[in-house]
Amino acid sequence: MASHILQRLLQSEDSHMDKVVVQKYGGSSLSTLEKIRTVAGKIKEAREQGNALAVVVSAMGGETDRLLELLFKLNDAPPGREQDTLLSTGEQASASLMAAALEYIGCPAQSFLGLQLPLYTDNVHTKARIIQLEGNKVKKALEEGKVAIIAGFQGINDYGDITTLGRGGSDTTAVALAASLEADVCEIYTDVDGIYTTDPGITPRARHLDKISYEEMLELAGLGAKVLQIRAVELARKYYVPLMVKSTFGGERGTWIVKEEDIDMESAIVSGISLDRNEGKITVIGVPDRPGIAHSVISPLADASVNVDMIIQNVSSEGYTDFTFTVPVNDLELAREIVEKEASNIGAQEVRINDSIVKVSAVGIGMKNHPGVAAKMFRTLSEENINLQMISTSEIRISCVIDSKYGELAVRVLHQAFNLDKN
Amino acid sequence: MASHILQRLLQSEDSHMDKVVVQKYGGSSLSTLEKIRTVAGKIKEAREQGNALAVVVSAMGGETDRLLELLFKLNDAPPGREQDTLLSTGEQASASLMAAALEYIGCPAQSFLGLQLPLYTDNVHTKARIIQLEGNKVKKALEEGKVAIIAGFQGINDYGDITTLGRGGSDTTAVALAASLEADVCEIYTDVDGIYTTDPGITPRARHLDKISYEEMLELAGLGAKVLQIRAVELARKYYVPLMVKSTFGGERGTWIVKEEDIDMESAIVSGISLDRNEGKITVIGVPDRPGIAHSVISPLADASVNVDMIIQNVSSEGYTDFTFTVPVNDLELAREIVEKEASNIGAQEVRINDSIVKVSAVGIGMKNHPGVAAKMFRTLSEENINLQMISTSEIRISCVIDSKYGELAVRVLHQAFNLDKN
Repeated sequence: MASHILQRLLQSEDSHMDKVVVQKYGGSSLSTLEKIRTVAGKIKEAREQGNALAVVVSAMGGETDRLLELLFKLNDAPPGREQDTLLSTGEQASASLMAAALEYIGCPAQSFLGLQLPLYTDNVHTKARIIQLEGNKVKKALEEGKVAIIAGFQGINDYGDITTLGRGGSDTTAVALAASLEADVCEIYTDVDGIYTTDPGITPRARHLDKISYEEMLELAGLGAKVLQIRAVELARKYYVPLMVKSTFGGERGTWIVKEEDIDMESAIVSGISLDRNEGKITVIGVPDRPGIAHSVISPLADASVNVDMIIQNVSSEGYTDFTFTVPVNDLELAREIVEKEASNIGAQEVRINDSIVKVSAVGIGMKNHPGVAAKMFRTLSEENINLQMISTSEIRISCVIDSKYGELAVRVLHQAFNLDKN
Repeated sequence: MASHILQRLLQSEDSHMDKVVVQKYGGSSLSTLEKIRTVAGKIKEAREQGNALAVVVSAMGGETDRLLELLFKLNDAPPGREQDTLLSTGEQASASLMAAALEYIGCPAQSFLGLQLPLYTDNVHTKARIIQLEGNKVKKALEEGKVAIIAGFQGINDYGDITTLGRGGSDTTAVALAASLEADVCEIYTDVDGIYTTDPGITPRARHLDKISYEEMLELAGLGAKVLQIRAVELARKYYVPLMVKSTFGGERGTWIVKEEDIDMESAIVSGISLDRNEGKITVIGVPDRPGIAHSVISPLADASVNVDMIIQNVSSEGYTDFTFTVPVNDLELAREIVEKEASNIGAQEVRINDSIVKVSAVGIGMKNHPGVAAKMFRTLSEENINLQMISTSEIRISCVIDSKYGELAVRVLHQAFNLDKN
């Protein structure tokens, strides 16, 4: 409960207000004027149910891409400061349009830009991190009975320059705002009605989840689930912000993302199976096995901002070893160039690239206390004659790299093996 | 001369810099990426000629109208604060795009929003007036050898809300910036190459003017000349900012707008003939002639923000009089409704509307010392059998309302009578 706001609200004539709610609407929920009108209606309805409402909006769907296209046609390596100033106009426009749409239907509203809150960030343009979000202006607007509409994705740095939080940054704005307001809930509205046990596009037996833990959601976001920006989940976990993912134009059903303690004891050992198609594999063969080899291959990739995920080094044989790792498939060509240069420096035999791999993962907080999960996963895949090329694990995740042609099959059989199938 | 900036520049390695120049580019000069590139090239060239450059940009051509259309479809009476937040994105985007385009061609540049300067305004949303423009950040950028790109049209009020300066407000931003920087010149780039003795569309004998006084330009702007926002001219006159109107994509020719003292003694008595097609005439007939009648007709119009221009009251005859005035043609229907209601209240006979009138004017600082100008104007028009319906004068302007069908003829004969014809 946002207790001191609540107290003031209870003292005011709006004494029926009993919850502080932060809502966030993504670009696909705001891509046309008709959708903006529909969302405005939903916001008004939620307010009339007695909630104090702060709403974070993304840019209208397609707007950010339109602006980026203009910018990159003028400058293929634009200054980050100018890119951020440009892109922030998308959220600025949708915030003022939404406030105007709300006023039109008799719902008092006021827009706030990142720099008006202010939302302070570091100086890393295009992917800034939040340092502090000042919630007092929003609180004041809520106390005055207004709906506060906050332009997501944007902040301001020490120099008074506009910064942006990276793709999906409006999720993070919403969670930071909810933390600052001590909101009762942060509702993320998007085009799906929540989190599923797996991609319903892969198997119709995928089940909707009513609840999932922050930790599981972090693993899923890390595996490429596009529903939430990973930093938003981290922030929600840090400040215990109860998150709800819902569909903007669907029904009432959604998925709560909450503390592990709030998940039923009886919940499944594995909560979901994910399939990540966005990685490629690089193998350096015949590497002289001496200390520092891994470092000399990996660090030039880090310098080029290529994110290396799984890494395996084979047992040495006659002084030589093989060294395998995965990188985002978009960076595969760049990584190949860097690694081939490095391979010849260290006297390696050969560099092999494989872009037809996928990563299939089982995620679940239940596996912390159930050591048999990995064995069951490997057995299930081997029964389908699916070869495991790489394996990595965390406390609540097991991931296997396999040939991409088996990806969907692997998901289906694991989904069934871990009792996730519908009915 | 912007002496203290100049001194610093002379001390620095850029010791060849000898002028501080403010340039302003309108939306029609920025309506495509290709035009933005061309303008960036012009800016770079001007900088390489040794100028310290601050450039004010409007929104890309068509963008403001696009945003207004979105807004008014959601709310036909949008809150001014939200309208300003929305519209300011147009200039924000073009400023960052221009800065990126300049950086791409090796010209260091930095964008500034109104709220980053800051440019402080009053609280009158959608037509705010400038209170103060803080030029220090721009000066610093110029000292660092950068081109400063300033988002025109926008400012910030006491509450930290974004305000806008009304249509054409970027002109006013440019002049205010030039005053703040004590710039050597403020160049307004547009789609015409300056001011003409009359509209070249009416007579091919219209002559380009090399110079015109602030006072004459104010009269012309008041008569509907679209080249410059009237407040920009007022501000330029107040701070003696030398203004230059030039064509963005044309040649070097332009028109200087300067102090009266800087106009040649030998200059023409009349500098230009203008034709204003944007007024309509309302006549209230048979008004009981008692004190307060004019007030009771005109003040409801003022309350409805209808701008009344010329006013004539006939000599009373048997206790009744006629009362005639002009209003902007766009407000004619609104004015008719208001006046008809008022006319019946005061017992007037009839209200007549005439929307087929024009106002032809002769403007020139020379007429201060030449009392025969009005007589010559009336004689010239009467020789063409053109009836004068209304007359009004200022120290440097004579205007006649005539039947609209004679408008172009009147301009041509006056243009010739006052020796303005080419050759």
